[in-house]
Amino acid sequence: MAQRTVADHDNLTTYEISALNAEIGVSDGHPRQRPSPGQREVLNSLPRLLAEVETEPFEELEKRAQRGFLSAIGQQAAPVAAGRVLSAYSSSLAMDVVGRALAERSARVGLVHPTFDNIPDILKAWGIPLVPLEEEQLVEGQIPAPVGDLDAVFITTPNNPTGTFLSEPALRQIGEACVERGLLLVLDVCFRGFETRFQYDTYALLEEVGVEFVLIEDTGKLWPTSELKLGFIGFSSACSLALSEGMSDLLLSVSPLVLRLVGELAGQAEEGGFAELHRLVAENRRVLTAALAGTSARVVDPDSRISVARVELPAEATASDVYEQLKEGGLHVLPCGPFHWAGQAEEERYVRIALGRDRDLIEAAAERLRDHFLVD
Amino acid sequence: MAQRTVADHDNLTTYEISALNAEIGVSDGHPRQRPSPGQREVLNSLPRLLAEVETEPFEELEKRAQRGFLSAIGQQAAPVAAGRVLSAYSSSLAMDVVGRALAERSARVGLVHPTFDNIPDILKAWGIPLVPLEEEQLVEGQIPAPVGDLDAVFITTPNNPTGTFLSEPALRQIGEACVERGLLLVLDVCFRGFETRFQYDTYALLEEVGVEFVLIEDTGKLWPTSELKLGFIGFSSACSLALSEGMSDLLLSVSPLVLRLVGELAGQAEEGGFAELHRLVAENRRVLTAALAGTSARVVDPDSRISVARVELPAEATASDVYEQLKEGGLHVLPCGPFHWAGQAEEERYVRIALGRDRDLIEAAAERLRDHFLVD
Repeated sequence: MAQRTVADHDNLTTYEISALNAEIGVSDGHPRQRPSPGQREVLNSLPRLLAEVETEPFEELEKRAQRGFLSAIGQQAAPVAAGRVLSAYSSSLAMDVVGRALAERSARVGLVHPTFDNIPDILKAWGIPLVPLEEEQLVEGQIPAPVGDLDAVFITTPNNPTGTFLSEPALRQIGEACVERGLLLVLDVCFRGFETRFQYDTYALLEEVGVEFVLIEDTGKLWPTSELKLGFIGFSSACSLALSEGMSDLLLSVSPLVLRLVGELAGQAEEGGFAELHRLVAENRRVLTAALAGTSARVVDPDSRISVARVELPAEATASDVYEQLKEGGLHVLPCGPFHWAGQAEEERYVRIALGRDRDLIEAAAERLRDHFLVD
Repeated sequence: MAQRTVADHDNLTTYEISALNAEIGVSDGHPRQRPSPGQREVLNSLPRLLAEVETEPFEELEKRAQRGFLSAIGQQAAPVAAGRVLSAYSSSLAMDVVGRALAERSARVGLVHPTFDNIPDILKAWGIPLVPLEEEQLVEGQIPAPVGDLDAVFITTPNNPTGTFLSEPALRQIGEACVERGLLLVLDVCFRGFETRFQYDTYALLEEVGVEFVLIEDTGKLWPTSELKLGFIGFSSACSLALSEGMSDLLLSVSPLVLRLVGELAGQAEEGGFAELHRLVAENRRVLTAALAGTSARVVDPDSRISVARVELPAEATASDVYEQLKEGGLHVLPCGPFHWAGQAEEERYVRIALGRDRDLIEAAAERLRDHFLVD
């Protein structure tokens, strides 16, 4: 038996790993739909792109990719030219570097609750004390008490799995509160490619507010590129964290080929690719929602646009049991318990269904779910 | 100015980053030679490989790539089938996961000295107390005192930048000493693809000795694949470190496409590709050595076969000064000071020259060096 497919799952990723070979795998939030014709064309041109990057100065290539991706998601003010955007192999690696830098400052961090558990796990591994901040209050622009002894606030926006995001007024209010209280603001914005309402220029807003900030960006949730992806760390001019130093211990540079690939896909996304992706996710959410109508379960977060959906279970069911029952039939979903890293009571009420899949797979998953939850 | 090309270099990688666009860049040890015709053929087939991996079960693909690569470098007993080989985006990420697991055990680590500074830097970031172990004694099979309060021994073999490696008797002796004293043995074997004398089956030997061990393997030093690469962590059946847990916080899976690419290149390496690579490195070392004959500098470590060479400077020169002088002429070398992470006196005596380059670039670098060090 493989070491990583442990029987007693210790975190959400181990559930996702054990679903990698599933008959119907809607466990992980990675993009697993078939590439669109345009994306396939870019992927077919990989050898040409490789030949081209071999002669291109690295710094120009990196800055062009960063600018291309970040402006495709509305971030014109991202500090690419100023050298305040760092590239990493993935957003989790970026998170690890941020965790290390926060630990060096002995920061006490207020972290959104619930959220994907590798965030609290990475921060805890670095010895960082965490205080849960409920997302209901954060989206209202409030940093829930107690904050007296916080050094930083860490918010996933849009949040995973709920899709909740900070509106412009809410983010401004939180930024201003951070300035007032001397707090660093860290935003994990990995899912923002799906949420056009969170594509207002965050860098411009936060620099205007004058808050010390770190943003973690991600290309990895969007395009089916066999995990060829990038994470980015963008940070404020006033940022005192040792981010460049930590990153240089972990990598010399990301792949020139992947930089080029991201640049090409970002360009294509702006010219209709994003709209197509957003339609796929919206349609998959509708299919799932419709299939569960009239059953004892239901899709919640109707306003969410990110590539996962939460399903609320009937009162008598638990996520752990439902996960096991569905798995026996070859359907892998993700039980939501571990998202509730501070251990709230509602943790067993939800499972998560990935929507970054082809329509036929979602239909198959939806049918199984409907059969399972159909009230006799 | 870019944030990462800091003026006052804090580690070796920042020197290497500032050399990425150099006229003659022999700073970093990454493979930057032109792909061989066979490698180019594999790279040209990336679109086909991508289409193939889209339908292949991930676990099989991963195990096949791990087995292909590890057996190409003599590691038939690597515990692939047992699930005790973990894949990562890079060897540095693997190192980070090992550092985290050592920190969880509050391990005090004896670390080879000198070695590439990102190893002590990553371990120190995790709060791990380090004790320097001189490589001269380690290669004799001795763990230098004091070891009374060590929990683990960490050895880079072949070592960077010296190329020194542990012979089979020396490794056996160190393994046995670790068993006797209850020490965990960690080996960074990232450069072993160049050193056939360190391709005896390390896993078989260490399992026979019965020592608790962790090995960090790397495909990233070998082939010019635009940084598409993998790091692996192989560990003993008796290994108590929480490696899988740490890895699952940082990644769900590596890229199926990169797994396939590594498998293809490993197969090709066994069938002549490694011999060709070893010839390139040996010829480049000869060119450099010959060019410096009769000058005030000289190539040392004549027995080394790894893809970097150390150049000893004349007594009156320092590595920092020579680095700056050569850089003004467009030649980027790596000053060896930071390799001596425990701060020994000889640290300013060497610069390092990368050999994983095309012959003409090495000739150009060698000529500049000869001009610089020619005794009037």
